[in-house]
Amino acid sequence: MLGRLNHVALVVDDLEKAGARWRDMFGASTSDTLTLEEHGVKVVFIDLPNTRIELLEPLGNGSPVSKFLEKHRGGGMHHLCMEVTDIIKARDELVAKGARILGDGEPKIGAHGNPVIFMHPGDFNGTLIELEHVPDV
Amino acid sequence: MLGRLNHVALVVDDLEKAGARWRDMFGASTSDTLTLEEHGVKVVFIDLPNTRIELLEPLGNGSPVSKFLEKHRGGGMHHLCMEVTDIIKARDELVAKGARILGDGEPKIGAHGNPVIFMHPGDFNGTLIELEHVPDV
Repeated sequence: MLGRLNHVALVVDDLEKAGARWRDMFGASTSDTLTLEEHGVKVVFIDLPNTRIELLEPLGNGSPVSKFLEKHRGGGMHHLCMEVTDIIKARDELVAKGARILGDGEPKIGAHGNPVIFMHPGDFNGTLIELEHVPDV
Repeated sequence: MLGRLNHVALVVDDLEKAGARWRDMFGASTSDTLTLEEHGVKVVFIDLPNTRIELLEPLGNGSPVSKFLEKHRGGGMHHLCMEVTDIIKARDELVAKGARILGDGEPKIGAHGNPVIFMHPGDFNGTLIELEHVPDV
């Protein structure tokens, strides 16, 4: 079922400073800042040769990431995102095996314009897993 | 400076159960269990098409991962590992820029037989970063 690791997401308290740090320290290549209203976050991607790192800053006080930042001062590792070729089929299989999907279980549109779901971290030793629909081309 | 994302490491409280869960839920392909005495961990790797996930269980009470597991019941995301072609050059550059290396600053041998260092998470918004020496071939 599992495809590529699409990205690893890190929460930061200051997106601009964090992006600059990755550029200055590692010579990393970073994207422009994306604002994802529906997910309550601002995002910068760092390109690696085989995948990406996603830096996340909460957008507004109602952001689901705000609570994380209250618990983890300065930030921390937040989730990992893996690709699946058919997100509805993957979701239905996972639910049939007893896994829990966050929210209402219906895919939302993620940072790359593809449908995504999040799995309950309690089912995977505390790790928050995002699945992103990336059909074969 | 940055090469591939070599792996993302997740701490788990029961390596055998966690490996089985990834196999059963996602049909993931998992490695045999490796015991890394020097690092105080037991390890299982999960292969993805473009990188790997490393499941870590503390080995003995003195393991550096034991404290993490006390704080994060059941487990959680622990570190990410990126490849560099020359770890001594990378370390010296990073230190010159003010970054801190954990331990005595000298590389240790990691899970793949290559020298590795760990950067201080306080310098990267709470994320623990491992650098692994993987020379160009």
